[in-house]
Amino acid sequence: MNSLLDKIESPIDLKNFSIEQLEHLALEIRQKIIEVMSKNGGHLASNLGTVELTIALHKVFHSPNDKFIWDVSHQAYTHKILTNRKELFSTIRQYKGLCGFTHPKESPHDHFHAGHAGTALSLGLGLATTRDLNAESDHVIPIIGDATLTCGLSLEALNNIPKDLKKFILILNDNKMSISKNVGAITYILSRILNNPTSSRIYRELEKLVGKIPNYGRSLSQQGRKITESIKNLVSPAAFFEQFGLSYIGPINGHNINEIIEALEGLKDCKWPTILHVLTEKGHGMEEAIKNPVCYHGAKPFNLDTGKFLPANSTQKSFPKVFGSHILKMADKNKNIITVTPAMSAGSCLDEFMIKYPKRCIDVGIAESHAVTFCGGLAKDKRIKVFCSIYATFLQRAFDNLFHDVCLQELPVVFAIDRAGISGPDGSTHHGIYDISFLNAMPNMIIAQPRNGNILKELMESSLTYDKPFAIRYPNMVTDDDDEKISYRPIGKGEILVKGKKYLLIALGHMNSIAMQVHENLQQCGIEATVFDPIFLKPLDSLALNELLIEHDTIITIEEHAVNCGLGSIINNFLALNDYRDVKVLNIGIPELFLEHGSHKALSEEIGLSSSQITKKILDFSLKTIENDNKNLSVIS
Amino acid sequence: MNSLLDKIESPIDLKNFSIEQLEHLALEIRQKIIEVMSKNGGHLASNLGTVELTIALHKVFHSPNDKFIWDVSHQAYTHKILTNRKELFSTIRQYKGLCGFTHPKESPHDHFHAGHAGTALSLGLGLATTRDLNAESDHVIPIIGDATLTCGLSLEALNNIPKDLKKFILILNDNKMSISKNVGAITYILSRILNNPTSSRIYRELEKLVGKIPNYGRSLSQQGRKITESIKNLVSPAAFFEQFGLSYIGPINGHNINEIIEALEGLKDCKWPTILHVLTEKGHGMEEAIKNPVCYHGAKPFNLDTGKFLPANSTQKSFPKVFGSHILKMADKNKNIITVTPAMSAGSCLDEFMIKYPKRCIDVGIAESHAVTFCGGLAKDKRIKVFCSIYATFLQRAFDNLFHDVCLQELPVVFAIDRAGISGPDGSTHHGIYDISFLNAMPNMIIAQPRNGNILKELMESSLTYDKPFAIRYPNMVTDDDDEKISYRPIGKGEILVKGKKYLLIALGHMNSIAMQVHENLQQCGIEATVFDPIFLKPLDSLALNELLIEHDTIITIEEHAVNCGLGSIINNFLALNDYRDVKVLNIGIPELFLEHGSHKALSEEIGLSSSQITKKILDFSLKTIENDNKNLSVIS
Repeated sequence: MNSLLDKIESPIDLKNFSIEQLEHLALEIRQKIIEVMSKNGGHLASNLGTVELTIALHKVFHSPNDKFIWDVSHQAYTHKILTNRKELFSTIRQYKGLCGFTHPKESPHDHFHAGHAGTALSLGLGLATTRDLNAESDHVIPIIGDATLTCGLSLEALNNIPKDLKKFILILNDNKMSISKNVGAITYILSRILNNPTSSRIYRELEKLVGKIPNYGRSLSQQGRKITESIKNLVSPAAFFEQFGLSYIGPINGHNINEIIEALEGLKDCKWPTILHVLTEKGHGMEEAIKNPVCYHGAKPFNLDTGKFLPANSTQKSFPKVFGSHILKMADKNKNIITVTPAMSAGSCLDEFMIKYPKRCIDVGIAESHAVTFCGGLAKDKRIKVFCSIYATFLQRAFDNLFHDVCLQELPVVFAIDRAGISGPDGSTHHGIYDISFLNAMPNMIIAQPRNGNILKELMESSLTYDKPFAIRYPNMVTDDDDEKISYRPIGKGEILVKGKKYLLIALGHMNSIAMQVHENLQQCGIEATVFDPIFLKPLDSLALNELLIEHDTIITIEEHAVNCGLGSIINNFLALNDYRDVKVLNIGIPELFLEHGSHKALSEEIGLSSSQITKKILDFSLKTIENDNKNLSVIS
Repeated sequence: MNSLLDKIESPIDLKNFSIEQLEHLALEIRQKIIEVMSKNGGHLASNLGTVELTIALHKVFHSPNDKFIWDVSHQAYTHKILTNRKELFSTIRQYKGLCGFTHPKESPHDHFHAGHAGTALSLGLGLATTRDLNAESDHVIPIIGDATLTCGLSLEALNNIPKDLKKFILILNDNKMSISKNVGAITYILSRILNNPTSSRIYRELEKLVGKIPNYGRSLSQQGRKITESIKNLVSPAAFFEQFGLSYIGPINGHNINEIIEALEGLKDCKWPTILHVLTEKGHGMEEAIKNPVCYHGAKPFNLDTGKFLPANSTQKSFPKVFGSHILKMADKNKNIITVTPAMSAGSCLDEFMIKYPKRCIDVGIAESHAVTFCGGLAKDKRIKVFCSIYATFLQRAFDNLFHDVCLQELPVVFAIDRAGISGPDGSTHHGIYDISFLNAMPNMIIAQPRNGNILKELMESSLTYDKPFAIRYPNMVTDDDDEKISYRPIGKGEILVKGKKYLLIALGHMNSIAMQVHENLQQCGIEATVFDPIFLKPLDSLALNELLIEHDTIITIEEHAVNCGLGSIINNFLALNDYRDVKVLNIGIPELFLEHGSHKALSEEIGLSSSQITKKILDFSLKTIENDNKNLSVIS
């Protein structure tokens, strides 16, 4: 068969394909995904699972009028390939290339730019509500993964689905394991699939039997259907969804295009909200990915022939790895250490901890709010030391929990805030660049960011004595971990890395290495700048700053965080509070825009965070302030 | 019978009371609550509903070893009265008096200081987990309301209850209506109470019948119990909770002390997690409160004899009332206006809107995250204008939704942020003083705060053209609403209220009236200050500020928001960015502490926000900066 993919420019082109042709198309698409992922890396396993489902959706429905809302949307590669983007597909997740998630700026077939789990149902309900207000008639079709059902947002939405909502089809793409181990009662509910022939026989017989009971007449026969339904529910997930007013269909085989198409055809124009339960296999069609779906969830580049990952470029440890290995060492020594992760155990390098101490490393599923409030409950026992490991972008889901259940209660939970900074290929949904804004708002919070792995370990050890809510932020970047002696880090104590005069560079965490390069650049221009690592954003090392400000009148703050609400802002407040006037300030950080995806290097350069760009900014700033000074002088004279 | 309440210093004292005595005690407590509430106001109706339940809990269990975790904790007045606080009860919700919520600083019987709904289950799971790690044996008993089950946090926790968790008793205090109208599928589930004798008879007969079926033998008899259970579930809420692995008991009459005690005794030392479904009546024992539980939820003071509310002190409208009446006017004219509220329709004055346009005023229950993401879905249709009405403190639950589903999508949702500022009698859980921190972090957000009702209306009208996410904050305070002509408010345009020189007061919203008083005070000292209302926090009116800064070198920012992350911080950033140096800055706002409860006036004075205190601060600051100037001069010379 010739390439069928070549014939597809838009979803209309597959409308007349036969089942056989669609199956062949699936093979081609799967091959294309594997090829591109072997070079770019990306969400491989989940996308291999949704090839047939996506083809069937586009065969039966009419996108973009019928609206597919991909939850998390990392499983929408086939959707992208089918909707005019196959030529660009090789650029996925690369700078200026296709986004790894759905993105309305790329295509009218993408309705939302989603990257966080659990939003599709609420968004879909919004679309369906306006559709009905406008008396329009398209289908709204959220596609969610099984793990999404552990997420409070999805459950809130589930509770809010009107019983009479028409043309609303919830596709449950159940691959029985999303990202990390799926947890909780709902996972158990989904696993009760009706596949036992004995049970089926019992239902049928019972149904007959109930119909024959003579004494109850009308009253029971009305209940007859309900009763057998109810019994069926004992071994199927139907009961759960029917409780929420959804009509349940399934489970069906998510790799059988014919079966999916038939099911979807039957749901067209449905008069009430319906859930279609589709069983898929993560990594379907690629042996290595099936065997190890966690590693192939966010896959690194791999060898196309063997499926094995290419060797990493660097033998250095990353901040998350330092965290993961050191917390385990601490837990070996101290049985009162507990960690909590909301479905990020792999990314946060807690898998080894979880295997060794399953009762002390608790994965709560995609339930960030619960994770943080649960930590509050754990930390109430002052003998216990609780580490909440969470990505910066997902901590956004737990701001109120952090405030209400940890800070307000004065409980010493340690937040190990991973992926702080630019996220790189994941893009704007995932940058961890806003958390300081709300962390700093909390009166009793301690906030620190280590510039290397050793200080990370020191902060972790020192936190055992801090007795206050404590946030340690760090990026997913390589770092030194030189196994130096671990020293105690007193709260609010910074470090002068190099002492100069006049120019004071204050940098946040890993940006201190950039600051040191800037220092060298400036040195070549004859400027001897000081580099100061505050380590603690809150409380600030005011003693050191006050001393430094005697000999410095030009302050440059450098951070990989939104510049208007991070280190720069904190320093500006410090200067105002302490009546520092004749001081020139330049705040360098992430400007006010939604930064898209790409390599860390490309994105840093786009926003001027490379050492040479920062050096130039400082020199320009210096010139400008001198001009201002001269202008002011000439006005006075 | 003599007063039994007089005999109670701690819960131990009621252990030997007879049922009759406990019933009498309930009457006394109910009377005490009504008396105090008639003077202080407070959460009357919910507390009248929990008198018997609380007495029974303290009779059967041993607080504080057995841990009652009161969700929201506005229903814990009886608990307070029984735990050594009856003498202080008359001070409840008053400055320096008892807190209206549980508060660990008041009593070891209060484990958390809770005021937001839905946290008790997660906190309880935390306590139970550490209890089991420590091999301890107390009971953990979260007490939740029915509305709490609409909250994603509770549902996340429900999903995370281990099936083998022992001595974990979830009390569902079901009064069928919490705060506003309860919504959604779970409400429906709870309403399917098993109360139909015909159904009961059918189950019993069916149970016998199933046991007798000859053909199935062992395999069916094993399923026998399950099957009858399952049928029972058709008309009871048991199925819902059993899906989550909870053993369900109930429903029982929450005003029959004997019945509750018997049920609780049966649950002592339970080997698996259990839910006890208790039916209570909001306002039980007070006719007026039963008839109108919404008004008596957060009751104002009332006449003790008639139960009627005392006349309000002021005929002026409040900001929320201006919002509520004006949004209805706008909706009358424009059928594309939709409002969404997460269970705050009464407080946010949307009840009239909801009655008139039920399809266009949507209450999603206590589901703040869903509310905001749902707004994103609604606003995707650019013909629709969506207003999300939400209290500032509860918007904290939707930061990620605001970021991910509204701002990042560039959708023009208007956030009507109610209760912005000091909350008064509700205290530290409810102050709306952190929201600017994260709102300001969003690149494309517009943020405004009107100083009076008329500007609020102008901003609401003008927002129809803004085409960006827009936050309007306002407090629950009286304000002018003079029905002046409504003018268009251009984005980012402030107003000079009075023009002076040298001293520039920049105040936020209603604090402009304080700033005007400060202006008068300063005038008496011979200082002619300027008062500038920026109206917009983002974008700032940089044109006006740049002009003002020509003639002013002392800037005083005045706000009722955390001072380190609100207006002051925004102005400090503006000054740094624009290289304003010879400028003295004084930021006045809420300092870094968790402000407790009391009248708005008392709390404002505690933190120095009265006009006279601010005037003094400005004069002191002025003196200090002059001293600094002189010191610097003498160092130079």
